[in-house]
Amino acid sequence: MNIFYWLLAFVPVSIALEYWHFSAGWVLLTACLAILPLSALMGKATEELAHFTGPRIGGFLNGTFGNAVELIITLIAIKKGLFEMVKASITGSILGNLLLVLGFALLYGGIKHREQSFNQQAAGMNSTMLALAVAGLVIPAVFMYSAHQPHSDRAVQLSIGVAVALFLVYLAALFFSLVTHREILAPVCEVEEENEPCWSLRKSITILAGATVLVAVTSEVLVSALEEVIATWHWSELFVGVILVPIVGNAAEHFSAVLMAGKNRMDAALEIAVGSSIQIALFVAPVLVFASLIFGRPMDLIFQPFELAALAVSITIVNLISLDGKSNWLEGVQLLVTYIVMALAFYFLPTA
Amino acid sequence: MNIFYWLLAFVPVSIALEYWHFSAGWVLLTACLAILPLSALMGKATEELAHFTGPRIGGFLNGTFGNAVELIITLIAIKKGLFEMVKASITGSILGNLLLVLGFALLYGGIKHREQSFNQQAAGMNSTMLALAVAGLVIPAVFMYSAHQPHSDRAVQLSIGVAVALFLVYLAALFFSLVTHREILAPVCEVEEENEPCWSLRKSITILAGATVLVAVTSEVLVSALEEVIATWHWSELFVGVILVPIVGNAAEHFSAVLMAGKNRMDAALEIAVGSSIQIALFVAPVLVFASLIFGRPMDLIFQPFELAALAVSITIVNLISLDGKSNWLEGVQLLVTYIVMALAFYFLPTA
Amino acid sequence: MNIFYWLLAFVPVSIALEYWHFSAGWVLLTACLAILPLSALMGKATEELAHFTGPRIGGFLNGTFGNAVELIITLIAIKKGLFEMVKASITGSILGNLLLVLGFALLYGGIKHREQSFNQQAAGMNSTMLALAVAGLVIPAVFMYSAHQPHSDRAVQLSIGVAVALFLVYLAALFFSLVTHREILAPVCEVEEENEPCWSLRKSITILAGATVLVAVTSEVLVSALEEVIATWHWSELFVGVILVPIVGNAAEHFSAVLMAGKNRMDAALEIAVGSSIQIALFVAPVLVFASLIFGRPMDLIFQPFELAALAVSITIVNLISLDGKSNWLEGVQLLVTYIVMALAFYFLPTA
Repeated sequence: MNIFYWLLAFVPVSIALEYWHFSAGWVLLTACLAILPLSALMGKATEELAHFTGPRIGGFLNGTFGNAVELIITLIAIKKGLFEMVKASITGSILGNLLLVLGFALLYGGIKHREQSFNQQAAGMNSTMLALAVAGLVIPAVFMYSAHQPHSDRAVQLSIGVAVALFLVYLAALFFSLVTHREILAPVCEVEEENEPCWSLRKSITILAGATVLVAVTSEVLVSALEEVIATWHWSELFVGVILVPIVGNAAEHFSAVLMAGKNRMDAALEIAVGSSIQIALFVAPVLVFASLIFGRPMDLIFQPFELAALAVSITIVNLISLDGKSNWLEGVQLLVTYIVMALAFYFLPTA
Repeated sequence: MNIFYWLLAFVPVSIALEYWHFSAGWVLLTACLAILPLSALMGKATEELAHFTGPRIGGFLNGTFGNAVELIITLIAIKKGLFEMVKASITGSILGNLLLVLGFALLYGGIKHREQSFNQQAAGMNSTMLALAVAGLVIPAVFMYSAHQPHSDRAVQLSIGVAVALFLVYLAALFFSLVTHREILAPVCEVEEENEPCWSLRKSITILAGATVLVAVTSEVLVSALEEVIATWHWSELFVGVILVPIVGNAAEHFSAVLMAGKNRMDAALEIAVGSSIQIALFVAPVLVFASLIFGRPMDLIFQPFELAALAVSITIVNLISLDGKSNWLEGVQLLVTYIVMALAFYFLPTA
Repeated sequence: MNIFYWLLAFVPVSIALEYWHFSAGWVLLTACLAILPLSALMGKATEELAHFTGPRIGGFLNGTFGNAVELIITLIAIKKGLFEMVKASITGSILGNLLLVLGFALLYGGIKHREQSFNQQAAGMNSTMLALAVAGLVIPAVFMYSAHQPHSDRAVQLSIGVAVALFLVYLAALFFSLVTHREILAPVCEVEEENEPCWSLRKSITILAGATVLVAVTSEVLVSALEEVIATWHWSELFVGVILVPIVGNAAEHFSAVLMAGKNRMDAALEIAVGSSIQIALFVAPVLVFASLIFGRPMDLIFQPFELAALAVSITIVNLISLDGKSNWLEGVQLLVTYIVMALAFYFLPTA
């Protein structure tokens, strides 16, 4: 039992603090700490479950549950109408994966291994798919701003059309990885778990279900605390969505990508960072639009202009890094500095 | 004789329907159907003509007549002052080549051949040239919008300067492919025509001339019908120019690129899609500007902002695909979905 | 003694013309001619000095003094408050390196050697670092324009933060090249100086110091002349900064990059063009911001929108050229035409 799981104690603590109306800062902090081990547990349980389903379905489960925490938090935020924050967290997750996670991975891996190389073609194909996915995601915003009508009725119609198109690409990508090209995108983590005994099927499912419920409860607490923080500390929905939510929501994946880089498995590290970003664009974003329709308040996919700029810069950078096939710690530092500069910029942006 | 040429019957039909003032939809449909076989005939006649001129001049003829239909349609539109539509059709041809044609090619080729690969260096050089050509093409718009003066007198002056510069690059590229580097860009289609007897020189020239005249006549009919459609169905010049004109104007090339991909000749498919886009930027666009000067109503090269965005996205994507050296059907699906999403967006754009 | 050094005679001439209040055009011309040999002398003296310091420190000296002329000119301009011109010269130096210098290098090298190739990985890593450096540099502008508040107080705060971040990356890059990865970025020019006797340490230092002082004096003359030209000829600060200052400030490097290409040493030519651009973004730009703070009138890093566009286009193009690993004269022509078109556009821009 990993010492890290002691953080689970923060699940009841955060709920209690929220119940006793402690100040939002404390509730936020404890809820974040509570979600980290839950997120890790879900990841572990999914991996164990994959032993019973075989690698094909396992890869699919891993991909889908990899963004489960993010998805739960944003669904709750959508129900509360925090659309700016939800859209910002889509942007922030992609930025976080491509700059923060990859930055730490290149830095940590580069310090341990001097120069690291990876399969340019696999990396190239993944980052091409990412570019295509994000291009689809941002087209509504690009077009509506160009027409100087960012928030017309047409924006919602177009956004729904785009969500359907992205979801179809997601299904096509599933068909690709589960049927026609299953060996290419095989799950990359199997070599790891050598000395630990496997979990039983029942244990895997029980823990997965339990962790999901606890994540949902703690996310309610988290989002309430975020609402209060936005109101009292005058942080913008945008800053909270771009920086805070993605760090909490993706912490587990981030950690494993950095570990992979430390083991000089750069292909796996890139796969996690880029693959997770693709999932955000093709699965999480459309599901959020569909959910908003069900909740009766349709959310459009019109991102803020600086979100577009930030996405364009990040995509370009990760493509360049993928394409040159080698990495070192200095590139890691540059990615992290770019992330920090963008975080600064989001912080300094007028709350409009 | 290919059964496809029966479509030639639509040449007189479309003219008759126009003469008898049938509704614009029917005239448009029949004119489009009439242009398809004419365009194919011109392509075939040019190839046959190349047997007499040798591969050097032949490659040049192929390149120039490859965009002849597009050029004829847009020249007629310029005479009628439909500048938005003409500029949109420049954008649309490049988008269509890079997303629609390449999308179908990767999808069809990928289904038949699982994973396809191509020469990264040849593809890379071509797509670099494309990026440079399109960069030149869009600079006037980028600068004029940045200065918040998109339609000043200076815009026309700058556009003429840019047209001259692009045409000089076109001449340099001709010199490159006909003199200094003739073997690199040799025509790619010679292996095909094994079992058919060659046409005589006279037959080639006669058919080429005849088809060109018929294309010109039918294009008059087509553009008149488009004008009526814009007026009565409330479609924007932009949508018609970006989506309809390029599909009709480039159908023949599109078809042959997809065929090449089916034969696993991805280098040839990419060459057609990218090469044709380069021709549009370096040859068609400047010629249209010069023609507008001759007609006495100068057309600038200030594209709409969303046209710039659409071009930037397409160029980036085709470069990424070129650079990773491999393709599969999922990339094809993504290209097609990106095209569809953009078409949706152009459709939903306010007609301003 | 190179005949080129006869141009040193223009040092006193330009000072005299300025003193006697000759028209600004003549002063400008002679000051430019005077700076060329001084700049070359500084480069030569730095190289000679490197023989005594060993390659590590030598590489650092070369990098830092490579932009000394540019830095001196812009520091003087900052003292006079010509912020638009200073920022434009940052943009212009990067544009000049990537389009003008590389364009001439590919054209000259391509004519002499038909097809040239270079190490894709080294070129790729360099251009990735450049993309990251420039991304950091332009983030303040992108974010502030997106928020429609380009010139608020926050812009200065954010710019200072960015300058600190870029300078930290510069220090990290120094540590990278001097300590952890010293062999990768070894100075590339050592093979050259075969038959000339080395300079003594004293001679190197004396000439370096003397040339620096003369550059400083002549730059005073130059900037005064530029101010007058802006006032009387109605050229914009922007045009002067983007086109004139960088050509004068970087002439020596430009010349050596073209020479390298002529010797078919494309790796060295790319290294000079790209490396010098990285230095501008990571060293010159932050130092100018810090200097402006010391002078008591803080300069922000909010570039004009068309500067952003020009930078984005140039970075993309140089990355594409780096990544395909081959070059020819036609690519050189295209780079030069892109530069000329941009220069035209900067010239035609309204002076606001």
